[in-house]
Amino acid sequence: MPETAYTLLERQFRRAAALGEAAAVLNWDRAAMMPKGGSGARAEQLAELHALRRDLLAQPGTDDRLAEAETDRSLDPWQRANVAEMRRMWVHATALSESLVMALTRGSAACEAIWRDARANADFAAVLPAFETVLELVREAARAKAARLGLSPYDALLDEYEPGVRAAGIDRVFALLERELPPIVAKALERQETRARPIRPEGTFPVERQRGLARRLMEALGFDFAHGRLDVSAHPFCGGVPDDIRLTTRYDESDFASGLMSTLHETGHALYEMGLPKAWRGQPVGEARSMSLHESQSLLIEMQVCRSQEFFAFLAPMLGEFFGAGGPAWMPANLHALATRVRPGFIRVDADEVTYPLHVILRHRLEQAMLAGDLRARDLPAAWTEGMTRHLGLVPPTDREGCLQDIHWFDGAWGYFPSYTLGAMTAAQLYAAARRALPDLAQEIARGRFAPLIAWLREHVHARAASVATGEIVAAATGRPLDADDFLAHLRARYLGES
Amino acid sequence: MPETAYTLLERQFRRAAALGEAAAVLNWDRAAMMPKGGSGARAEQLAELHALRRDLLAQPGTDDRLAEAETDRSLDPWQRANVAEMRRMWVHATALSESLVMALTRGSAACEAIWRDARANADFAAVLPAFETVLELVREAARAKAARLGLSPYDALLDEYEPGVRAAGIDRVFALLERELPPIVAKALERQETRARPIRPEGTFPVERQRGLARRLMEALGFDFAHGRLDVSAHPFCGGVPDDIRLTTRYDESDFASGLMSTLHETGHALYEMGLPKAWRGQPVGEARSMSLHESQSLLIEMQVCRSQEFFAFLAPMLGEFFGAGGPAWMPANLHALATRVRPGFIRVDADEVTYPLHVILRHRLEQAMLAGDLRARDLPAAWTEGMTRHLGLVPPTDREGCLQDIHWFDGAWGYFPSYTLGAMTAAQLYAAARRALPDLAQEIARGRFAPLIAWLREHVHARAASVATGEIVAAATGRPLDADDFLAHLRARYLGES
Repeated sequence: MPETAYTLLERQFRRAAALGEAAAVLNWDRAAMMPKGGSGARAEQLAELHALRRDLLAQPGTDDRLAEAETDRSLDPWQRANVAEMRRMWVHATALSESLVMALTRGSAACEAIWRDARANADFAAVLPAFETVLELVREAARAKAARLGLSPYDALLDEYEPGVRAAGIDRVFALLERELPPIVAKALERQETRARPIRPEGTFPVERQRGLARRLMEALGFDFAHGRLDVSAHPFCGGVPDDIRLTTRYDESDFASGLMSTLHETGHALYEMGLPKAWRGQPVGEARSMSLHESQSLLIEMQVCRSQEFFAFLAPMLGEFFGAGGPAWMPANLHALATRVRPGFIRVDADEVTYPLHVILRHRLEQAMLAGDLRARDLPAAWTEGMTRHLGLVPPTDREGCLQDIHWFDGAWGYFPSYTLGAMTAAQLYAAARRALPDLAQEIARGRFAPLIAWLREHVHARAASVATGEIVAAATGRPLDADDFLAHLRARYLGES
Repeated sequence: MPETAYTLLERQFRRAAALGEAAAVLNWDRAAMMPKGGSGARAEQLAELHALRRDLLAQPGTDDRLAEAETDRSLDPWQRANVAEMRRMWVHATALSESLVMALTRGSAACEAIWRDARANADFAAVLPAFETVLELVREAARAKAARLGLSPYDALLDEYEPGVRAAGIDRVFALLERELPPIVAKALERQETRARPIRPEGTFPVERQRGLARRLMEALGFDFAHGRLDVSAHPFCGGVPDDIRLTTRYDESDFASGLMSTLHETGHALYEMGLPKAWRGQPVGEARSMSLHESQSLLIEMQVCRSQEFFAFLAPMLGEFFGAGGPAWMPANLHALATRVRPGFIRVDADEVTYPLHVILRHRLEQAMLAGDLRARDLPAAWTEGMTRHLGLVPPTDREGCLQDIHWFDGAWGYFPSYTLGAMTAAQLYAAARRALPDLAQEIARGRFAPLIAWLREHVHARAASVATGEIVAAATGRPLDADDFLAHLRARYLGES
């Protein structure tokens, strides 16, 4: 077969993917296996892999090859979509000068290190100078990407995580959530007050038992241990590569529930990766579509499925088997009530699914304002407190429970927060569609039969990979573009008893 | 500081080293962690890292930069040695055309896969065609390297593992061993017959206990678990990178001794890597000097130290502690007798240290003859049987116990075998020198105090890295060039009771 621009590009991007895959395994190893003394060597290895990947994508002639492939009429739709994804990766990889990339990498690493202490000491002033540097560099990067992509600076950052999604659309739906959620929170809290307080299961839950339970549930959900592992890290995540997923979780011997829910959440991410089309491994079109769609898969499994009443009907006897426990705390209804408590709090990662979007909306507003130059870094603590008071009626006691809580901004990740809530909305809309398509779904879940749901997700989401836009996947799977209706209906049903 | 040819080369080779380090961690992961289904993706990742490393070393302009650095009078001795090592790596990386490298990689992989079944079925004919292909490709590669290095084809292959060592020197010392070893074997067997047969400790030795014992001994020897791990793989090895060593072993619950000796052997390799100079991480001059020196470090720990009477005086009470055992089988003298049994056999990797060199000499002769075209691939089984009969008085029942037993040739690794025996000789010569320098060494070892020995090795071997030739390291540490005297004296002392 003669070489074409397209086949040359396939090879170039497969090689870049192999570097990314190697880095993914090294990242997992760093979190789950590496002895402390390996961190210097590992940082160097990862930095070199990263630089090499960028060099590969930026290779001279790539632009011309892309242009030629873009007019190749012999390509099929997936190949055309592959070229479009290559173009997008190439633009993001080359939009920033090498010196800006290095300044960002160094600046973020320095700021992140200072932030760790600043957060522990609730000392925003300590991190402010480094944070100002990061903000300036991110603004410069956003402007550079904006120029290349023909977008606003914020949209240009967003585009890396959420291709095709724009701030205007996010702002509209966030404005709706900002109106609708506070009354739901208030009513849910009232309703909770009228009911018996759920009982927390007491006991010691040995790590080995928790691991056995986690593996059993992962297998039930369709996680294939011939293509993946379960290990431990400080922060649970789903890493590795589609044919070799490295899922991590954590175990607390006095509380099995939190680690278990983390495992189930990450399993949703893993099933997405495992369900990507084998024929397109190593090609841009074969990758997961977007951050929000990824988050929709983890939240669909964790929030929609595994915090439902039917799931606890399935889970409760299994908890008895693994932990030898019984009594009122272990009844399905009690466990479900525990897993769906609403409690406004300061910390995003501890938030329930009703208040979570309010945390995200606050961050989205603040990062837009900082990027636009309307909010100075030094004024962030005051703006944060003002926003928390407005959105959640809470005043953080210190900046540790306020603007210092998340790593993202200090580490240079901007434009990422909206994906969490877009993911929650997408999860609700997909799950509603799945329930329409699979009328027995709730009963199946109560019996621990997840295969029909996973098959539906595989067909409508996983197998489509990046062949079309996120919006098109959601619309084709659910019959309409993404909106907040199913998400709000889900919250009203679960937390207010409305159907 | 202005860029010079030398500083540019340092950067280029550091990047290549980072790729090699990443591959080392991925290789460890493949053997110790990876689920089966990850093998395809992993092979692709490793192949790409390998290709990228070669591309990096072969970058246009490298030759000129090397030439410029070679005349840079401002460089200190380590920097000059670094340039020499860069030149050597560059020559080996660029001596073969890319098409020959790919043909070798593919041919070896194909042959290795066929060999696995052929060995299981003792069916040499099945692997012969693929083996003939590998041999032809290796001969072509050897000729290409020979032309670049101005060496004979065999010496050119040898040079990659043993820089500066030539077949002529190996042949001389192997001829001596070939004369001296058979009478030692015969006398050792006679002497064994006159003594009570040692008793094998019976029992079940739980993996967790064996792991605990292994870790205790590794720590006693100076293995730093802040910079390394101990895991399990089918074949024990020492992988990873100097700041993050990944040592593997295996456990047999009915026999703790074999896995334990493997662990101690690999610990010797690990201590070498951990002792390489921190200031030269990622540079060619900072790497281990040669395969034989590496093997000398593992054999010094395993054979010289850990199969000595004084070591068993230290180990025996510890075995009692970990396995709760006692009685005649657990006495130091019995354990030592077990660990130093001589038994001529068919299989190299199971051989004792007296007969081991005879296995190596056979392979060295055969691979030289095959490379020279004096022995055809198809005639290997007959030549093997003839050699085993001559060297060890044994006729392999099938080719499984004969020429199919080792992976090396079928996987394209030629010129590697001599390193094992050069390593054993070097270990004996270094250990004899260490005993002269540390008169209390035997008593220290009996007390479990290894620090003085390791400090001596660090100073005289590890810390010198690749700053001078192997021969110079050995001569400086021991007072004379490498010979077989101390090795033969060691065997006569341990196995014949001569002192």
